[in-house]
Amino acid sequence: MPNPTAAMLVIGDEILSGRTRDANMHHLAAELTRHGIALSEVRIVSDQRDAIVAAVKALSDGFDHVFTSGGIGPTHDDITADCIAAAFGVSIDVRDDARELLAAHYDRQGSALNEARLRMARIPEGATLIENPVSIAPGFTINNVHVMAGVPNVFQAMVATVLPTLTGGAPLQSQTLRVDRGEGDVAGPLGRLAEEYPELSMGSYPFQRNGAYGTNVVIRGSDGPMVSEAMAKLVALFPGTPA
Amino acid sequence: MPNPTAAMLVIGDEILSGRTRDANMHHLAAELTRHGIALSEVRIVSDQRDAIVAAVKALSDGFDHVFTSGGIGPTHDDITADCIAAAFGVSIDVRDDARELLAAHYDRQGSALNEARLRMARIPEGATLIENPVSIAPGFTINNVHVMAGVPNVFQAMVATVLPTLTGGAPLQSQTLRVDRGEGDVAGPLGRLAEEYPELSMGSYPFQRNGAYGTNVVIRGSDGPMVSEAMAKLVALFPGTPA
Repeated sequence: MPNPTAAMLVIGDEILSGRTRDANMHHLAAELTRHGIALSEVRIVSDQRDAIVAAVKALSDGFDHVFTSGGIGPTHDDITADCIAAAFGVSIDVRDDARELLAAHYDRQGSALNEARLRMARIPEGATLIENPVSIAPGFTINNVHVMAGVPNVFQAMVATVLPTLTGGAPLQSQTLRVDRGEGDVAGPLGRLAEEYPELSMGSYPFQRNGAYGTNVVIRGSDGPMVSEAMAKLVALFPGTPA
Repeated sequence: MPNPTAAMLVIGDEILSGRTRDANMHHLAAELTRHGIALSEVRIVSDQRDAIVAAVKALSDGFDHVFTSGGIGPTHDDITADCIAAAFGVSIDVRDDARELLAAHYDRQGSALNEARLRMARIPEGATLIENPVSIAPGFTINNVHVMAGVPNVFQAMVATVLPTLTGGAPLQSQTLRVDRGEGDVAGPLGRLAEEYPELSMGSYPFQRNGAYGTNVVIRGSDGPMVSEAMAKLVALFPGTPA
């Protein structure tokens, strides 16, 4: 059975402006790989309603699971929940259980559950809440879309909550060989090996170290013994260093 | 005049698998911001023909400029040039000037211009070459799409070649204020300030340091004096530290 597919949608201007470097994508990619779900596309869009709605629709239609990060806080540009509701044509409003979570939290903190913070209890109709053990304001799942916070430690906690509820595939195995040859020398034989193993994915990543050219060759697949077999053939072609 | 828009398309499995962390996106985002071009969307797709062709079409239609990275090397999974040709319905073949660049380079190196390396001279009809001072194999521009290598130092050199040829806008200015208040306290007044300045983009980024909550507020726009004016009003609302 092929591995389930996933896409990620990162919402927010801060990465597009170059102000911050994304951390959530890298975290999710590694977690999904471990869980046997193939991350197949990532989109990063700005805080624009049309862009978010279009991306949610396209990714929800195209992949088994969609994970979003960002845009569910209290400020004017946090419009993700409303856009998700619009994408699925459902209503959205402050929901009692989410409001109660927030009220108890801010009461403990001695802060006010003001109008801005109450925005974080807006949940599209029919969604299931995703627990936020860090700062309480919940994420939610609707259809195949998991809507999570952009703050990295909150995002990571939500991923840890959601992933065990999803049916994964066999974990994707990966083996790497470091070859002290340029990519152009590796390419021909590697291409023929890739044809021999259509179930596996083979990638080559050139690097330069201390002035010398080299290539990391990565073989990936969900069938561990097959990955090892193909790697043994690769080593016979190019004696290298497992990396 | 509004700033020109741009999108980036990252092609390759290595980021989606969590193996490597993207560096090119972060570099391009900062360079475009400096050049007054607004990076508005990024997509990362795997080495799959259909995914690449669809993304190129959508982004080329939707934005003033498109920058791609990855998939123009010598191996079997380097299919970007062919996909670009397919997206624009033009033919592709080994081009004499690109072949001569490669032949001279590998001759100097004492390596063979083998069949795999010759793939890097495949250029879609009507494209203009982008110089590669690092490893010679050229990128190319066709219509509004700039096709560049994924290896970071080559990517950066190609960006440096292409950007001065594009008409930018006024450089996007950005000012940041660090406020020692939670995002929920900042949200209301910030939303009203954002309504007052529809030409500016205002974002807030919560953080936690030493157990205390805080918020970085960023005001961006191409009108520098207006950014300063809005920032002065923000400081009056929330005495903070310029960051």
